[in-house]
Amino acid sequence: MNTTTLDMSQPWRQRLAERLEQPRIQFLVMALILINAVILGLETSSTMMRHWGGVLKLLDQIILGMFVIEIGLRFVAHGWRLLKDPWGLFDTLVIAIALVPASGPLAVLRALRVLRVLRLVSIVPSMKIVVQSLLSALPGMGSIVALLSLVFYVAAVIATQLFGQAFPDWFGTLGASLYTLFQIMTLESWSMGIVRPVMEVYPFAWLYFVPFILIATFMMLNLFIAVIVDAIQNQRERIAAAKALKEGTAGEVQAEHHASTLSGVHQELLLDEVRQLREELSSLRNALRER
Amino acid sequence: MNTTTLDMSQPWRQRLAERLEQPRIQFLVMALILINAVILGLETSSTMMRHWGGVLKLLDQIILGMFVIEIGLRFVAHGWRLLKDPWGLFDTLVIAIALVPASGPLAVLRALRVLRVLRLVSIVPSMKIVVQSLLSALPGMGSIVALLSLVFYVAAVIATQLFGQAFPDWFGTLGASLYTLFQIMTLESWSMGIVRPVMEVYPFAWLYFVPFILIATFMMLNLFIAVIVDAIQNQRERIAAAKALKEGTAGEVQAEHHASTLSGVHQELLLDEVRQLREELSSLRNALRER
Amino acid sequence: MNTTTLDMSQPWRQRLAERLEQPRIQFLVMALILINAVILGLETSSTMMRHWGGVLKLLDQIILGMFVIEIGLRFVAHGWRLLKDPWGLFDTLVIAIALVPASGPLAVLRALRVLRVLRLVSIVPSMKIVVQSLLSALPGMGSIVALLSLVFYVAAVIATQLFGQAFPDWFGTLGASLYTLFQIMTLESWSMGIVRPVMEVYPFAWLYFVPFILIATFMMLNLFIAVIVDAIQNQRERIAAAKALKEGTAGEVQAEHHASTLSGVHQELLLDEVRQLREELSSLRNALRER
Amino acid sequence: MNTTTLDMSQPWRQRLAERLEQPRIQFLVMALILINAVILGLETSSTMMRHWGGVLKLLDQIILGMFVIEIGLRFVAHGWRLLKDPWGLFDTLVIAIALVPASGPLAVLRALRVLRVLRLVSIVPSMKIVVQSLLSALPGMGSIVALLSLVFYVAAVIATQLFGQAFPDWFGTLGASLYTLFQIMTLESWSMGIVRPVMEVYPFAWLYFVPFILIATFMMLNLFIAVIVDAIQNQRERIAAAKALKEGTAGEVQAEHHASTLSGVHQELLLDEVRQLREELSSLRNALRER
Repeated sequence: MNTTTLDMSQPWRQRLAERLEQPRIQFLVMALILINAVILGLETSSTMMRHWGGVLKLLDQIILGMFVIEIGLRFVAHGWRLLKDPWGLFDTLVIAIALVPASGPLAVLRALRVLRVLRLVSIVPSMKIVVQSLLSALPGMGSIVALLSLVFYVAAVIATQLFGQAFPDWFGTLGASLYTLFQIMTLESWSMGIVRPVMEVYPFAWLYFVPFILIATFMMLNLFIAVIVDAIQNQRERIAAAKALKEGTAGEVQAEHHASTLSGVHQELLLDEVRQLREELSSLRNALRER
Repeated sequence: MNTTTLDMSQPWRQRLAERLEQPRIQFLVMALILINAVILGLETSSTMMRHWGGVLKLLDQIILGMFVIEIGLRFVAHGWRLLKDPWGLFDTLVIAIALVPASGPLAVLRALRVLRVLRLVSIVPSMKIVVQSLLSALPGMGSIVALLSLVFYVAAVIATQLFGQAFPDWFGTLGASLYTLFQIMTLESWSMGIVRPVMEVYPFAWLYFVPFILIATFMMLNLFIAVIVDAIQNQRERIAAAKALKEGTAGEVQAEHHASTLSGVHQELLLDEVRQLREELSSLRNALRER
Repeated sequence: MNTTTLDMSQPWRQRLAERLEQPRIQFLVMALILINAVILGLETSSTMMRHWGGVLKLLDQIILGMFVIEIGLRFVAHGWRLLKDPWGLFDTLVIAIALVPASGPLAVLRALRVLRVLRLVSIVPSMKIVVQSLLSALPGMGSIVALLSLVFYVAAVIATQLFGQAFPDWFGTLGASLYTLFQIMTLESWSMGIVRPVMEVYPFAWLYFVPFILIATFMMLNLFIAVIVDAIQNQRERIAAAKALKEGTAGEVQAEHHASTLSGVHQELLLDEVRQLREELSSLRNALRER
Repeated sequence: MNTTTLDMSQPWRQRLAERLEQPRIQFLVMALILINAVILGLETSSTMMRHWGGVLKLLDQIILGMFVIEIGLRFVAHGWRLLKDPWGLFDTLVIAIALVPASGPLAVLRALRVLRVLRLVSIVPSMKIVVQSLLSALPGMGSIVALLSLVFYVAAVIATQLFGQAFPDWFGTLGASLYTLFQIMTLESWSMGIVRPVMEVYPFAWLYFVPFILIATFMMLNLFIAVIVDAIQNQRERIAAAKALKEGTAGEVQAEHHASTLSGVHQELLLDEVRQLREELSSLRNALRER
């Protein structure tokens, strides 16, 4: 398809892209999303559906149609590059879900239509910022999450082999063990629900579960701390940047550097001044001598 | 009503306002609140009510009367502006609750009479500060709370559509789903109580619940972090302000700025001095030449 | 008693006090505490008691006797002032508990004999520091704890009046309500155990419980944050103090102040130098004119 | 054995050690670990075992053989010193577990074979760093953990004596009490599961359990805070070190010191300059007078 090769420099495409970014259009889309949210909420009520089902479904279809037109126009304006922008991809996906015929094994997709409402995030700037800052915390968690996954995998294999036969519901398969261990990590009914019954068969089971809880919660704690320390660090940098911005430089270090540079500039001036003074004085003396 | 137009500059009104702020009056109100708290506490005991019910109710009525007089005097002193002050509005509301006839559908208001005891907060300065600092943390949480609400709404619509028919008690209506998801977010019996039973009908329900728990708790964590970072930031600013106060300036940044300014002033003086020196020297040379 | 009036300057008392503080004695007391801890632990085993009960009780009595002698000597050395030192008071109390005849209604005191083992804290310096730092966090929590208590009291009175009759076990009395609300604040079975059953009678009970959970956990969060911010602050001050100590000044602020003062001193010198320069130049010009 | 006395300076040993550290070998070991992880995971599925059991076990044996060879070569290269390096010791232990005949009472060791997969940590550098940073947080927790253990021991002895006879399952022995108190500290079913049933026999049991919860969670909170404060401190030091590195000095303080020294150098130059200026002026005046 040659749409991908089309350039944004084509004036009418750029004009269309600009027009779609207009506050008026954005506001309209936001209003449609909110109305759609209410409609999808009302559709969960069987009483509402019995009396107003037809109207609600019709309105839903109309709004969906508008969304399809809007996303279509954005595709015309931006071409396939739209899918490279994560928000554009997200918008496309949640609209696409609504267009898939939700029948048979795909009936679950009907319920996912409401994900459309999450488009609000990509429209409201303050929410977009929050989501981006939440997502920005993820990479810093990477290595601890990898380690936690490894610990979970190893713990699940051990649990399946040790307790799988006696407690098939909880530890029968690797998946069941992983789920149960996740439950235990959240401390939900870990003792009365899981470990005490297990200890009635294997009295030393606490030797497995108590260390697991200690290790898993300690790692979770460190995951939280990583996020907190990161957030404090970011906050500090934001403040330093804001301060520097106000003072006309970039960053605390640089601001300090700037201050000392400023002071240095003053001193350089002074030094120059004094040096010129000395030269003047020299020439004065020479002038006197010459006489 | 012309009370709103009356000016505080009217001397007797101002005098009354001042008199109501006197430590003696404040102490009396505080004592009445505490006595009232004890009385309302005793009224919850049926044994006490059987033997001393009449006395307790009488005392309660007397104290309520005093509160009405006090709030009335404050209205006389401040006019309707009292309702613009959040604490004044709060005091008025908790007294008003006690005056509404608590019968029929409003019987629940009887139980709310004890909210009167919360007036202690508006009387004791240290508690007032704590409440204000707690409330001051709320705006910073705004956008995450908005996002969390959106996620809850979307998750509730999905849960109602997916699990509503099979589990009407938990997910039958949008409201029921919201309550159940709130319970799951607090991790209370989420697995043994809710998700395991659901998984017996829909084996893949964990694909919905585990991500929901991860997202919801991660957002809660970030909500907490926002409050923590804010608190640390405030603390730092308070310290900087206190330090600056001690040193005679306002704020760390300004203190630093001040320091560099001070140093700058010194250097300006020096530069001026040296420049004058050079001019003097110039005039000296000219004087020499003229000879 | 004239012991209180006796002065520590009495040489033999001071000598006794010093001797009791000797590492050798402290080590002996520590060893006795640890042995006693083991004995009291063994006494909980009925098998051990059947076979070795007599020996264990005898050993316990001997060690208790030694503790009584030690504390007695400390009383001789320090007089009643020992009770003014919190650690001395604590040591005296836990020994006194063991001496009270533990029979009849006081049988519970038998179980408290093991509190003696906590004397380890007052002997091991690193533990003493931890306990003191834990206790030092308490005053900063004061006003939030007071506010939390007020909220709990008000919430308990309301809960007792609203749900007391239908659920006497949970909300029958003010005490029962306080306990149940504490359980709800820890999020233990708050929904499946308490609120869902209550909602079957009062469908709008969530209007009371969900806000209570939000307020109580938000206040707990702020309590935690107060402690965290305090700890970070203390840590920072400790570091600043250590740094200042190393640099020979007291405190980061002063160190900075010192630096700027130093720089100021340099500039003062410079300014003086330049002023003298100008005066010299002036006198030079005058000298030239006079000619 | 004289291997311990053999020196690494022996060229062929050093060459072997270097060769084992080659990225190619490390990558091979990593791949083997991951394949082994999958095999051990598949072995938990009874369906897989029925159809592919023989193949899986054979593959497992082959990979184990390779690991034995690898660890053997490392022993040849490093001698017994390998066991002094914690990671070397860990690698040796998890291989040794697989070689112990897992039958009879040692059957549990079969399940521990999967610990081999944790060798991934010692191979992947980023995971190694995370584990080391997690472990580095432990010493700072030492004294609080010791205090917490003491509190647990004392609390367990008291609980066993008070509630042991009536509730042998929960408080029958010291071990049972310790486990139950650990469960209570994690707040799992503490009230509905444990304390409410106990209060039906001993109505004042809350006087024991509520303070225990408050003390234990407060200590846990302080444990967390210790880790957080440590992490923030480390982070700050890392940043300061990085900043200093970039600026060519060591540490924030020194960087600041450096800056002020720099400024001082400037001022020294200036002062010298002005002094020379004054001397020149003096000599000028003298020259004038001499005439």
